[in-house]
Amino acid sequence: MDLTLPITKTACLAADQDDPLHRFRDQFILPEGVNYLDGNSLGARPATSAQVATRVMEDEWGTGLIRSWNTAGWFELPGRLGNKLAGLLGAGDGEVVVTDTTSLNLFKALAAAVRIQKAADPARKVIVTERDNFPTDIYMAQGMVDFLDQGYSVRLIDHSLSLPDALGADVAVVALSHVNYRTGAMWDMAATSSAIHDAGALAVWDLAHSAGAVPVDLRGAGADFAVGCTYKYLNGGPGSPAFIWVSAAHQDRFWQPLSGWWGHARPFAMEDSYEPVSGIGRFLCGTQPILSMALVECGLDISLAAPMAQVREKSLALTDLFIALVEARRGDHELELITPMDHAQRGSHVSYVHPQGYPVMAALIARGIIGDYREPGVLRFGITPLYVGYMDVWNAVEALFDILDNKLWDTPEFLARLQVT
Amino acid sequence: MDLTLPITKTACLAADQDDPLHRFRDQFILPEGVNYLDGNSLGARPATSAQVATRVMEDEWGTGLIRSWNTAGWFELPGRLGNKLAGLLGAGDGEVVVTDTTSLNLFKALAAAVRIQKAADPARKVIVTERDNFPTDIYMAQGMVDFLDQGYSVRLIDHSLSLPDALGADVAVVALSHVNYRTGAMWDMAATSSAIHDAGALAVWDLAHSAGAVPVDLRGAGADFAVGCTYKYLNGGPGSPAFIWVSAAHQDRFWQPLSGWWGHARPFAMEDSYEPVSGIGRFLCGTQPILSMALVECGLDISLAAPMAQVREKSLALTDLFIALVEARRGDHELELITPMDHAQRGSHVSYVHPQGYPVMAALIARGIIGDYREPGVLRFGITPLYVGYMDVWNAVEALFDILDNKLWDTPEFLARLQVT
Repeated sequence: MDLTLPITKTACLAADQDDPLHRFRDQFILPEGVNYLDGNSLGARPATSAQVATRVMEDEWGTGLIRSWNTAGWFELPGRLGNKLAGLLGAGDGEVVVTDTTSLNLFKALAAAVRIQKAADPARKVIVTERDNFPTDIYMAQGMVDFLDQGYSVRLIDHSLSLPDALGADVAVVALSHVNYRTGAMWDMAATSSAIHDAGALAVWDLAHSAGAVPVDLRGAGADFAVGCTYKYLNGGPGSPAFIWVSAAHQDRFWQPLSGWWGHARPFAMEDSYEPVSGIGRFLCGTQPILSMALVECGLDISLAAPMAQVREKSLALTDLFIALVEARRGDHELELITPMDHAQRGSHVSYVHPQGYPVMAALIARGIIGDYREPGVLRFGITPLYVGYMDVWNAVEALFDILDNKLWDTPEFLARLQVT
Repeated sequence: MDLTLPITKTACLAADQDDPLHRFRDQFILPEGVNYLDGNSLGARPATSAQVATRVMEDEWGTGLIRSWNTAGWFELPGRLGNKLAGLLGAGDGEVVVTDTTSLNLFKALAAAVRIQKAADPARKVIVTERDNFPTDIYMAQGMVDFLDQGYSVRLIDHSLSLPDALGADVAVVALSHVNYRTGAMWDMAATSSAIHDAGALAVWDLAHSAGAVPVDLRGAGADFAVGCTYKYLNGGPGSPAFIWVSAAHQDRFWQPLSGWWGHARPFAMEDSYEPVSGIGRFLCGTQPILSMALVECGLDISLAAPMAQVREKSLALTDLFIALVEARRGDHELELITPMDHAQRGSHVSYVHPQGYPVMAALIARGIIGDYREPGVLRFGITPLYVGYMDVWNAVEALFDILDNKLWDTPEFLARLQVT
């Protein structure tokens, strides 16, 4: 839409009517009176999920019982869903599995990468990541090097521009979040992976805030490993299992230490020694939560039906609209945009810092405008183009300034509780 | 019931009528025409699960959306369910969490135990386990020592009697399955833990085939760590999250390397350095599959309502009955009982080896008698006293001998596919 000021409500209404993705809104169940701008934390519920849950509960668990491992394809779920997801990530068949959690999959990727480097150049003992990365990514790396206790360490960079300086001859692996959970800033995956490779290191990407939200081309970008989550922009359900992608070039080089029976070459032969299966299957570990996993397919199918070019175009239009509307009304409010203006560097959410960020977000949530709050002082608004429209953005910004202009955060809503990533 | 031969069908019918646990059968949904003797692989579906699934799907995910992390208590689920489960394990409040998979929890326990020993006596670098342990337990230990690459190793014992010989001054930790998945043989947890401690090692118990099936008293037995699964005798649903128990004495000594944000002292402060929360919470890692986890409560509540003394008494009566009925009809069939006759050494399933074990089990399953098959040649019959009765055992043995006497395994059912643990 045209962002020439003044932007009008009429223009937003018109943009919604012209929206080629408008039809996807009905594929989600969203409660009345809610303007949901937190799909980057927990995606909305796909309408088909009720039917799938009933099938898994009644037909598969209740009636099929143990037989469903075969007859309902439970064994194949991690790989089958992984192959579907591959279509959104620029990955190939047999390169992705849906399993475990993002934190655990990151551990697997880091461990495999460290092992590859240990064989190639044992002096490479540093894992580089960002201080502003989602904390669990830092903690998992710290837990690993601490456990290894062999001189490995984690090096935190404070700004994306300082990455080149951090890429010494001691670096084994660089683990970055493609889109930053706080600011929405996005790395250039291809250029960054290339720089990491030039420095002799391996590139691990966390796609938690990318998968389903922005174009991702893992193969084209020359990435080595990637992990991510299915419950944000992919709408898989609360805590639905995560995913891991491993470049076909690396899959069979070593295996990861969380070597459970699901990654064994012959899991039912009950052998007394681990032998990893060839391929991405060796990144599986134990038995997966089938009900939570089966629901991942509902959201995936919606995302696969929505052309990513349209999703990206609408995402940028909505974040642009949000930024323009705020800018037009900002006045003296201490509202600082921390999301990049450059489209190439922006994911699919918009974040502002405000000294009263916490109570301001609580006041928004109390009136049904659901974004979320992140320390320190960050108001975060997620844009899922499949179910967020132009009028949603208009209304959110209207409410935000009603709260700011009238200092409505100084109310009982002050005590409203935090939301989660 | 009286097991004096001949045992009659009438006596089995009477035993079912006198069964104080008979009322629990109606709390499960079991399909018509199925005699389910595989609850040690995947437990049956509790009747309340449909209502809980609908609540989580519609009210919590659909309507509550991100707010449900607080308003529906999603954050507290691992600890709240862990506290409930503690009642079945002889554990205290704040000692158990429900999370991740059994394989992963074993990795955490082994890693924490190895770390404690490293500080106390760095020469202890051996993890002892059984060659006949469930394979993933061996594989996880192998994956860990292989990754550490510091002289750690896994020592496999071939028979429980050889444990004392394996307990040298080099042993850091002993990881045993309380009830063997194949034979149903059960360790004396207290005596064995004591012997392990006398040898200067730590005891890690896998309760996959114990929790909800046999009396467990972790504190009383002086165990150090325990892990287990909720989808077998606890009827949590396919692949429902597992659990980990850590003796309060060890919880805060070190932390485990899968140190995700859920185990951080202040997960939402978004700090750039891992600081484990005090207590069992540090054995959490990442965001859990809420739907699969919420359903764990349905099965737990049933188990908590059933007195364990009655469960154990009926379990032994049913396994005794199974063994006696088979013995009475065995004749020349090559059917070898591999489950201990001694009650103190028996879990809650009965297993036989037969040269045609695989097709024999396939033929049983084809007529609705669902046990399972395990290499090599093992027919395994799980007894969940909450929903298995005396007539079920009678009918299963009748069917087994119909198949054996008439060589009915040599049929198209030969091709029926395998079941899973």
